[in-house]
Amino acid sequence: MAEEKIKKVSIVVSKGSLEGAYPGLIMANGARMEGIEANLFFTFFGLEAIIKKKMNKLKVATVGNPAMHMPTLVGMLPGMSAFATSMMKKEMDKIDIPPVDEFIEMIYDAGAKLYACKATVDMFHLTMDDFCEQTDSIINVGKFYEVSAGGQIIFT
Amino acid sequence: MAEEKIKKVSIVVSKGSLEGAYPGLIMANGARMEGIEANLFFTFFGLEAIIKKKMNKLKVATVGNPAMHMPTLVGMLPGMSAFATSMMKKEMDKIDIPPVDEFIEMIYDAGAKLYACKATVDMFHLTMDDFCEQTDSIINVGKFYEVSAGGQIIFT
Amino acid sequence: MAEEKIKKVSIVVSKGSLEGAYPGLIMANGARMEGIEANLFFTFFGLEAIIKKKMNKLKVATVGNPAMHMPTLVGMLPGMSAFATSMMKKEMDKIDIPPVDEFIEMIYDAGAKLYACKATVDMFHLTMDDFCEQTDSIINVGKFYEVSAGGQIIFT
Repeated sequence: MAEEKIKKVSIVVSKGSLEGAYPGLIMANGARMEGIEANLFFTFFGLEAIIKKKMNKLKVATVGNPAMHMPTLVGMLPGMSAFATSMMKKEMDKIDIPPVDEFIEMIYDAGAKLYACKATVDMFHLTMDDFCEQTDSIINVGKFYEVSAGGQIIFT
Repeated sequence: MAEEKIKKVSIVVSKGSLEGAYPGLIMANGARMEGIEANLFFTFFGLEAIIKKKMNKLKVATVGNPAMHMPTLVGMLPGMSAFATSMMKKEMDKIDIPPVDEFIEMIYDAGAKLYACKATVDMFHLTMDDFCEQTDSIINVGKFYEVSAGGQIIFT
Repeated sequence: MAEEKIKKVSIVVSKGSLEGAYPGLIMANGARMEGIEANLFFTFFGLEAIIKKKMNKLKVATVGNPAMHMPTLVGMLPGMSAFATSMMKKEMDKIDIPPVDEFIEMIYDAGAKLYACKATVDMFHLTMDDFCEQTDSIINVGKFYEVSAGGQIIFT
């Protein structure tokens, strides 16, 4: 018997750094390109990826990540995170990965659904007005499990 | 045909910062509120969330997270992590998310099962006495896959 | 009716710190020991775990992780990450968890398949020559979903 194909993915984006938010977006985009249903659920700092005023200002973390191969004393210098961010964006652009706002628009246009986590929204005192127009609604964890029925939950 | 509902979640908590441990707890709690079976498996630094002496001392990371919007030079100041932690706890309290020990108790009373990762327990020289009473047992990865049968594995 | 056992896991390794990469390797190894099919997909900084020149140089993050219980002012000192790394490696060795290169070899010999993420490979200008010999191939997200059919996706 053939193995059952992945039919749906419900991806939680929980991190607000550039390298923390992109994997979830890339996996959602990749899913839609294969005809796989895709939900994105933004929670905790990951919520910044759909906040209009912040979505294009996500930065690379230059401290706390030894794989950056940058001493903390260098990584903490003012401007260093902005520099690393600009470098990574340049490389992403070369391989056709767009900035967050365009990427969100592309993923939405491809049919993915975007949700904001109610607990985080309440904690940070946000409203629907703060989110980009592609945001479907603010839902709680229970509702998230409901929309995830029949698919895979991927927490990033 | 209706999509198959999520029936069980087995959530791995691998991080020991406040914002790293809470998402797993919130997802386990949300699962139980919907009648979904829930297992929690604490591993690596996430183990601190069930260590009696540490579970209520988890702190927010103020460096290494650009979404904190705090320069590393500020985030590293002594007391800054304690300050951010106290702020986040206050906001969480407002939306009825309790401190870790009470939250663990609530999730346990709602029927979730809590497990400690054997490899981490051995690595950090811990014993069952170090863990809160809600901890069911210390299990290895193989046993974790066994208790996860029929459900979703969510690594946080 | 008995619950359906986990038959396959497809584990994404996205982090390049020692404590970030090991959980995925441990879960893949544990899967194979139980006869569970295992795929490893290395992406973003996690790719370092299969880059020949870097795989044995992964380091513990001593800043940005409050569970290290080390003030940032101490964690950032030159040599501190190397020290914490050497300590953790010693403890891992005691519980028979080998260095990354040996662990990768062991997991591969046990039948797991290892893949590198195409987008990251392109972004970091890498080629197959950079990867350890156990690396099967460079695949994109779509192909990853394909090899994940019939199993669980676990993002670490």
